[in-house]
Amino acid sequence: MAKDKQPRKPRAETPKGFRDYFGADVIERRDMLAKISAVYERYGFDPLETSAVETVEALGKFLPDVDRPNEGVFGWQDEDGDWLALRYDLTAPLARVAAQFRNELPTPYRRYAFGPVWRNEKPGPGRFRQFYQCDADTVGAPSVAADAEICAMLADALEEVGIERGDYIIRVNNRKVLNGVLEAAGVYDPNDPEKFVEERGIVLRAIDKFDRLGREGVLALLGEGRLDPSGDYTKGANLTFEQRERIMIMLKGGHENNLAAFDFLAERSEIGKQGIEELEEIQDLLAAQGYGPDRIVIDPSVVRGLGYYTGPVYEAELTFEILDEKGRKRQFGSVAGGGRYDDLVKRFTGQAVPATGVSIGVDRLLAALRAKGRAGVQAPGPVVVTVMDRDRMADYMAMVGDLRRAGIRAEMYLGNPKNFGNQLKYADKRGSPIAIIQGGVEAAKGVVILKDLILGAKIAENATLEEWKDRPAQVEVPLTELVAAVQKMLALYKDLAP
Amino acid sequence: MAKDKQPRKPRAETPKGFRDYFGADVIERRDMLAKISAVYERYGFDPLETSAVETVEALGKFLPDVDRPNEGVFGWQDEDGDWLALRYDLTAPLARVAAQFRNELPTPYRRYAFGPVWRNEKPGPGRFRQFYQCDADTVGAPSVAADAEICAMLADALEEVGIERGDYIIRVNNRKVLNGVLEAAGVYDPNDPEKFVEERGIVLRAIDKFDRLGREGVLALLGEGRLDPSGDYTKGANLTFEQRERIMIMLKGGHENNLAAFDFLAERSEIGKQGIEELEEIQDLLAAQGYGPDRIVIDPSVVRGLGYYTGPVYEAELTFEILDEKGRKRQFGSVAGGGRYDDLVKRFTGQAVPATGVSIGVDRLLAALRAKGRAGVQAPGPVVVTVMDRDRMADYMAMVGDLRRAGIRAEMYLGNPKNFGNQLKYADKRGSPIAIIQGGVEAAKGVVILKDLILGAKIAENATLEEWKDRPAQVEVPLTELVAAVQKMLALYKDLAP
Repeated sequence: MAKDKQPRKPRAETPKGFRDYFGADVIERRDMLAKISAVYERYGFDPLETSAVETVEALGKFLPDVDRPNEGVFGWQDEDGDWLALRYDLTAPLARVAAQFRNELPTPYRRYAFGPVWRNEKPGPGRFRQFYQCDADTVGAPSVAADAEICAMLADALEEVGIERGDYIIRVNNRKVLNGVLEAAGVYDPNDPEKFVEERGIVLRAIDKFDRLGREGVLALLGEGRLDPSGDYTKGANLTFEQRERIMIMLKGGHENNLAAFDFLAERSEIGKQGIEELEEIQDLLAAQGYGPDRIVIDPSVVRGLGYYTGPVYEAELTFEILDEKGRKRQFGSVAGGGRYDDLVKRFTGQAVPATGVSIGVDRLLAALRAKGRAGVQAPGPVVVTVMDRDRMADYMAMVGDLRRAGIRAEMYLGNPKNFGNQLKYADKRGSPIAIIQGGVEAAKGVVILKDLILGAKIAENATLEEWKDRPAQVEVPLTELVAAVQKMLALYKDLAP
Repeated sequence: MAKDKQPRKPRAETPKGFRDYFGADVIERRDMLAKISAVYERYGFDPLETSAVETVEALGKFLPDVDRPNEGVFGWQDEDGDWLALRYDLTAPLARVAAQFRNELPTPYRRYAFGPVWRNEKPGPGRFRQFYQCDADTVGAPSVAADAEICAMLADALEEVGIERGDYIIRVNNRKVLNGVLEAAGVYDPNDPEKFVEERGIVLRAIDKFDRLGREGVLALLGEGRLDPSGDYTKGANLTFEQRERIMIMLKGGHENNLAAFDFLAERSEIGKQGIEELEEIQDLLAAQGYGPDRIVIDPSVVRGLGYYTGPVYEAELTFEILDEKGRKRQFGSVAGGGRYDDLVKRFTGQAVPATGVSIGVDRLLAALRAKGRAGVQAPGPVVVTVMDRDRMADYMAMVGDLRRAGIRAEMYLGNPKNFGNQLKYADKRGSPIAIIQGGVEAAKGVVILKDLILGAKIAENATLEEWKDRPAQVEVPLTELVAAVQKMLALYKDLAP
């Protein structure tokens, strides 16, 4: 109808890479985060909610993925010339808070946080520019007991939201062991960390791909490079046979607890030796609380992407199988990861502050819960009170009021009531279990009709016709018994719920 | 220690006008929003979480406050040249969603939403550039039954979070009545809405200030202007005596139900007449559900700032008194407001879509709950297991694990354990009720010491010394009875809680 000369109407679209969450999606995420929060609070962690906006100066250039150091943030300049930006994770704001409030906060400071973060990256399928993170960190605790605690807490959180024991494994490694192995292999010099930086990058990425490429593929990358089946060539680190062998010890036996294999580190790398000792301590601390290798395992093949890790690193993997987009079985994979980063607060204060923490990929974990059918209860559709007689809206509203006061989710139909079919279509779209009907005849008799909207579907799905044949699709009850009759009908379905 | 030549360290500061929320503040807000959500869901409203970022095109220039039309948003240009911005409220994104998903959403669509919004305004004391809103809106319902429903729901929500009946009042008016009065007074011409726009602005702002300025002050503003006690002059609308009288009828008797006084509208303004009828209908619908004028009242002096309202407007005011910053008593005031806006979705689709909704000022309502001592339970401090012997961390960790498995909030001390005094100071800062101590002597005997950290304070505060004199400040129990002994000690305090 718009005239040609009118200004163009705005497009009703989210910006590229952004999305909205409706109804059940919001509730499922909220329920999951509430359960995780309860575990974190039991561990003594306090919630923190920082502002979404930080100065670019405070955020720094610590964008997480070392492979893509130039990926951006959403930023702008304010009136005073300061550059502001949306936070890209929850760790950088924590480092700022730990420095800003260092005199007020307890030491150590255990905090958890969840909320959206923003990345100015190219959006793609399933790849959004705003997504949720859920983090827990301990700031100011030098002991690896803090790392062990976070691993135990992560295991508890996964079980609390519905991932059963045996369906997940938390793998722990130590950057110091990695550096020790690299030192022993002659590609890391503690006195000149910048040396061999390219070779180390290739080696770490190769180790990270062990699961996918296998022993042969990793060996090729450590040596002259690798040609993949599609014909793509990946540059190798050009290490000698001996160098390659030392690194491969780390991957011996795949994901087993093989700290013993690292004995050679003791005489060749001080940092490597220290890393092994820390891992042994973590193992002992966890064992004392009953977290055995069925839940948390030392795994020297774990690398983790973030450049800023300085000690233990850990990640949670879900081990059950799902079907990928091509219908092939594969393990669900990683849903959380973290580690020790002792230098982030130092940026602000000049003093090193030890810190360690984990970040849960909220959308990934939710997807896993959905795959397992554990994503929480769908909110029930409301009982819909239909409008048969426009002049008696007050009567219908009174019925809705009575139902709501009894704690029953209920609505009066608020669209154009002329076409009754539309009212039932609306109730269907809302997933409504019951429609309430009162025309002039019923009003005169002081009764209402309860129409059972899901009876047919339930018969088909869950029960034999025999069981249901005595059950009428609608009942007439006195208006005074409306609430009780609705409660009775809803209770029938509660028993049937899967 | 930093060398002079090092680059300047970044400042650890939130940007101006932004803030962080810690511990109890986060929990109180979360609890309050959970209670409000439960009420909204009972009314059939579904949650919606839109992205924080919108295109500037979609947001439009509908910034809420008519007095400050040029106040800004935080915006930036993306790589493709599109302008993006942070949402400044939750209504503009809802209008975008209602247009974008009009074929998928039920009609009417009842939705609630809460989350931060951002305003690029000059920050000031208590005035932040990021703050929470909590909205509920019904889109696609032309009937004022939708407005009545939202008023009833707002009353229920206020009671649910802890505002007692009698401590709040919801006032309802109708823009159509206001326009009718203005038409009858000759400052509104339905055929040329742009005419007299300046006079109407002055009149509406004057009515809005009736509470503060009283009858005389409003009359002055309707006439030649007003000189306030400080000497500031506010320009008047220069209306004639008769024009002023017609407007003052609206304020006759202050906040009473005086729809009858508007009889003169019936013959002078079609729109005014319609507005009166709608208010009467709202009153009847609310009465049918038992919401009388003790909770929701028709009040023709309500104006509401937003330019886009087209029908009923409503606001919730808390009527209990608090002390202002100068120690004077004053009513707490407004915590929520809203109304009908039938033109927002039309921007996108060209077709008018009736909508009505309310927004709760989350921080204001939280402040009110705190003033009333109803802001929810403080999270308890954790039981702190102290570290007497560095070599037995695994033992302490096992104790913490046992406590946590029993659902008790507990921590092992993770700072430097050398100075035991620091451990007790830490426990104090954390609000810890009990410290657990096990040195070498105790370990050899297989016992632990429970140190009661709040006994002294509780004796002073809540009980006579007589009542407590048999209670030791610390007890020694077998390690195997640790959990039971802690539970017993915590239970004692539970009984004492205010």
